[in-house]
Amino acid sequence: MVATDSLVLLVLSLDIGALMLPTSDFIIPKEGFRYHHAEPGYVMLTYWIPEGPFMLPANASHQVGVGGFVISGSNEVLVVQEKQCAPANCGLWKIPTRFVLQSEELYAGAIREVKEETGIDTEFVEVIAFSYTYTTHNVCTYNVAFEKSDLFFICTLRPLSAETIVDDPEIEAAKWMPQVEFVKQPFIQEDSMFKKIIDICMACLEKHYCGLTSHQMVSKCDGKLSSLYYNFINMEEIYQLYWQLN
Amino acid sequence: MVATDSLVLLVLSLDIGALMLPTSDFIIPKEGFRYHHAEPGYVMLTYWIPEGPFMLPANASHQVGVGGFVISGSNEVLVVQEKQCAPANCGLWKIPTRFVLQSEELYAGAIREVKEETGIDTEFVEVIAFSYTYTTHNVCTYNVAFEKSDLFFICTLRPLSAETIVDDPEIEAAKWMPQVEFVKQPFIQEDSMFKKIIDICMACLEKHYCGLTSHQMVSKCDGKLSSLYYNFINMEEIYQLYWQLN
Repeated sequence: MVATDSLVLLVLSLDIGALMLPTSDFIIPKEGFRYHHAEPGYVMLTYWIPEGPFMLPANASHQVGVGGFVISGSNEVLVVQEKQCAPANCGLWKIPTRFVLQSEELYAGAIREVKEETGIDTEFVEVIAFSYTYTTHNVCTYNVAFEKSDLFFICTLRPLSAETIVDDPEIEAAKWMPQVEFVKQPFIQEDSMFKKIIDICMACLEKHYCGLTSHQMVSKCDGKLSSLYYNFINMEEIYQLYWQLN
Repeated sequence: MVATDSLVLLVLSLDIGALMLPTSDFIIPKEGFRYHHAEPGYVMLTYWIPEGPFMLPANASHQVGVGGFVISGSNEVLVVQEKQCAPANCGLWKIPTRFVLQSEELYAGAIREVKEETGIDTEFVEVIAFSYTYTTHNVCTYNVAFEKSDLFFICTLRPLSAETIVDDPEIEAAKWMPQVEFVKQPFIQEDSMFKKIIDICMACLEKHYCGLTSHQMVSKCDGKLSSLYYNFINMEEIYQLYWQLN
């Protein structure tokens, strides 16, 4: 790290150089403006005109990822191997996962990432679980690019095509893998999070689980089209299942 | 809007002034650095050192809100009136809602916002639904502060105290409201999104619905403590319920 009075140069890794410019470097923030957010092409500063506390909603706070569990009629799971992977999970065949874009519906993001990573067309079925990971400020203080919380949604999708095509710089290989082989991979069996997620996927297949389906509606509050994700318990189906099990 | 070659000054509303500084205004971005994100105290620029595409994850893309449905043993719902409201919903008594902070667990955010808005202590029960709203770039192009997607989680919480205390600049009043009165408010009855959410809350109370509970675990992938939210169908309870209904 190189530090001067006016800027901090960080090397986050061998791949990334980063410059962190504090408020004091620019005249405009001194005049009462404050940074609100930045995107690759611009930085936005805002000024709250009325007296009283600053009430403008903060910058976006979370990154959202999605994982797509796709299974064929012959019980094969759609899996990928990534080009870049941590030593612990090299060789792992995993479900496709990717960030959702900032102006993209969640289910559309799931369909897109499965298509990009494997070439397979799908239709969205439901969200079956989500994980929430937050980063506290006292961990790796200067690694500010990652001081946001992550939401990761696990979705089930129905395949509409069969032939895998790999044309993605992050993906080494994609294939259909027998469910039994997929589940018994050591990394999945030894990782509490992965194992639970796969257990839920399997429970879904056996209709022991009800996920959240997407329903589009407009609220009068903002007039925007939104998707409300909620579950629907079919009492009749569950009753029949109960009798099969007992 | 005032535009010159070098900066764009926007007035987003009577309350907010905003400055949008394009990349071309600074020398540093011209040298290959690009804005990554900004917070009130700094702006960060990054540079991708290897050849090939920029692989650093993008800036945070989503804002996350949470609404807390709290009901007392005597079927009263914890509700608030906001100081600032759109004309259409003035006078509405609603459940407490607020943004989750960027370094805060989802369930902790729900507990915090209920406490801040009403003074009531609670414990988290479950997430019962979530809404997802995305903003497309072709809507209000210059209103860039809001070009992010929103996730809004509806949670149920159990009250641990009874006396409401209002000490929040955004809240006009807080109280316990009989469930029947709460539900029959015209704004809730006439809004498809609000009505569905309240229907789900009521189904939860009658145990016709299973939400997602939080389970903490660590994945070997990143070594971080995360919460996995998933549901658990109690077959025995549902079976008994089925017989009561039929």
